[in-house]
Amino acid sequence: MNFKQLFLATITTSLITFGCSAEQNEWRSLAPEKTVLLTLPHGKVVIELAPQFSPKHVEQFIKLTQSGHYNGNKFYRVIDGFVAQAGPVDGSNADKSVSTLKIEGDWTVDANWSFTQVQKNDLFSEQVGFKGGFALGYNPSESKAWLLHCPGVIAMARGNEADTASSHFYFTNGQAPRYLDRIMTVFGRVVYGMNHVQAITRTSVIKGDIAIDSKEHTPILAMQMMSDVPELERINIEVKNTEHPAYSEMLAKRRKRPSAFFFKKPPPVLDICQTPVASRVAK
Amino acid sequence: MNFKQLFLATITTSLITFGCSAEQNEWRSLAPEKTVLLTLPHGKVVIELAPQFSPKHVEQFIKLTQSGHYNGNKFYRVIDGFVAQAGPVDGSNADKSVSTLKIEGDWTVDANWSFTQVQKNDLFSEQVGFKGGFALGYNPSESKAWLLHCPGVIAMARGNEADTASSHFYFTNGQAPRYLDRIMTVFGRVVYGMNHVQAITRTSVIKGDIAIDSKEHTPILAMQMMSDVPELERINIEVKNTEHPAYSEMLAKRRKRPSAFFFKKPPPVLDICQTPVASRVAK
Repeated sequence: MNFKQLFLATITTSLITFGCSAEQNEWRSLAPEKTVLLTLPHGKVVIELAPQFSPKHVEQFIKLTQSGHYNGNKFYRVIDGFVAQAGPVDGSNADKSVSTLKIEGDWTVDANWSFTQVQKNDLFSEQVGFKGGFALGYNPSESKAWLLHCPGVIAMARGNEADTASSHFYFTNGQAPRYLDRIMTVFGRVVYGMNHVQAITRTSVIKGDIAIDSKEHTPILAMQMMSDVPELERINIEVKNTEHPAYSEMLAKRRKRPSAFFFKKPPPVLDICQTPVASRVAK
Repeated sequence: MNFKQLFLATITTSLITFGCSAEQNEWRSLAPEKTVLLTLPHGKVVIELAPQFSPKHVEQFIKLTQSGHYNGNKFYRVIDGFVAQAGPVDGSNADKSVSTLKIEGDWTVDANWSFTQVQKNDLFSEQVGFKGGFALGYNPSESKAWLLHCPGVIAMARGNEADTASSHFYFTNGQAPRYLDRIMTVFGRVVYGMNHVQAITRTSVIKGDIAIDSKEHTPILAMQMMSDVPELERINIEVKNTEHPAYSEMLAKRRKRPSAFFFKKPPPVLDICQTPVASRVAK
């Protein structure tokens, strides 16, 4: 818990004590030092990093971001319904100078570990749920948990070997490629501007269609830590607190679909990657 | 089977007979009279209709398309990761003049019914698979099948009552909202230009963000049946034949992930909505 969260939690506790609304801690503010502002030619994207799950990848991504490594990089591999991948020119000095990372695809949990469970018997894992706003898989039989490849996550690309990721990254932009879970390192997720991620120029076309010239590849105008952005230019995002009872209530309601629109109720199951964790722009 | 398919099938049979490649019927050509060309300001989209599954919705959609009903309509409800919905101005004469449709959300199948099975024990249905390139759910216990809400399908919007769809339609643009399966009528899917569907201006923003002016809503420049488009301006699409043995072989391979990239193999399951049915532009 960072200072701002602690501050908010303290205030909210006081409000509850005095009988006021607990609305405030249904949301949590993102810490600027673990939030990224990506500026594309057509709009801004905010990414929440997940150092609590993928510490070494986040550490390297922050270091690279602050060194200006990503500024001017291109999205050179953009496949509709799959991924938008960016990084320095392959084999360039900027590319070769970055050290490789040991994969952080999953981690071991102990008996006290918990998360906000969404569904059992998901197609790819024994359980799925949220922790700190991130969608996770959890196999109690293995005592393992991991971040899921839901749409809008950011993960590090790699070669064939497990520990070969360095600085090239991708956003998932279509139906969750869950088969990549645990064998890639997801290290954050888009909390604002996913529409701009979706508008990144596709570099891959179907057979027989006109190829995209590399000059048209979407560039990264700037990649900055939000803490390095002047306060007036920041986009301050708050995200639903998936540990708050109100979030579990939302899940229970969503499972039942009480709205009259559902003249016939769907199966009482939830696809974790289709279950929203809402964001809002802070006042 | 339309004439062109029959023609191709005949040729291919001849080729097989003479020991040549059977590659040709791994693909099937789309019939122009059941294919739609949607022109957006930023690009063209091709939709394959599914009269074999949703005959009355397709019939009405073709009639409306040919009458010019959709030309100039706006995408007035566009939510990232969910749907892009368009139609005439609510309550306008053009809107009110369209008759409502009986829902075609699922249908009864007999003992001889078959499809290319992809997965059993999918989260939302007993079985899932493809038929004619479309992703279907199938519950043998009910003898029911239905079209799935995978990304890129087109379905008719409706009011709270089942049989209230008329002309407003939506494309799914994010993780499959499978909870809408069977209670909405899916009647086609995008086979070309999904990147342009993804670039439709979102009309919905998160709390605290700047609202989108309705003047910015993406218009439909033209909606035409491909058969009404001059031949030289057509986009002729071929789609993988999901009934061909080569498609089943692809599925089996995809389940096993033989590539060296998979240093650890994922669970041998397939998410139907993340399983591609490739398109190509015909020569």
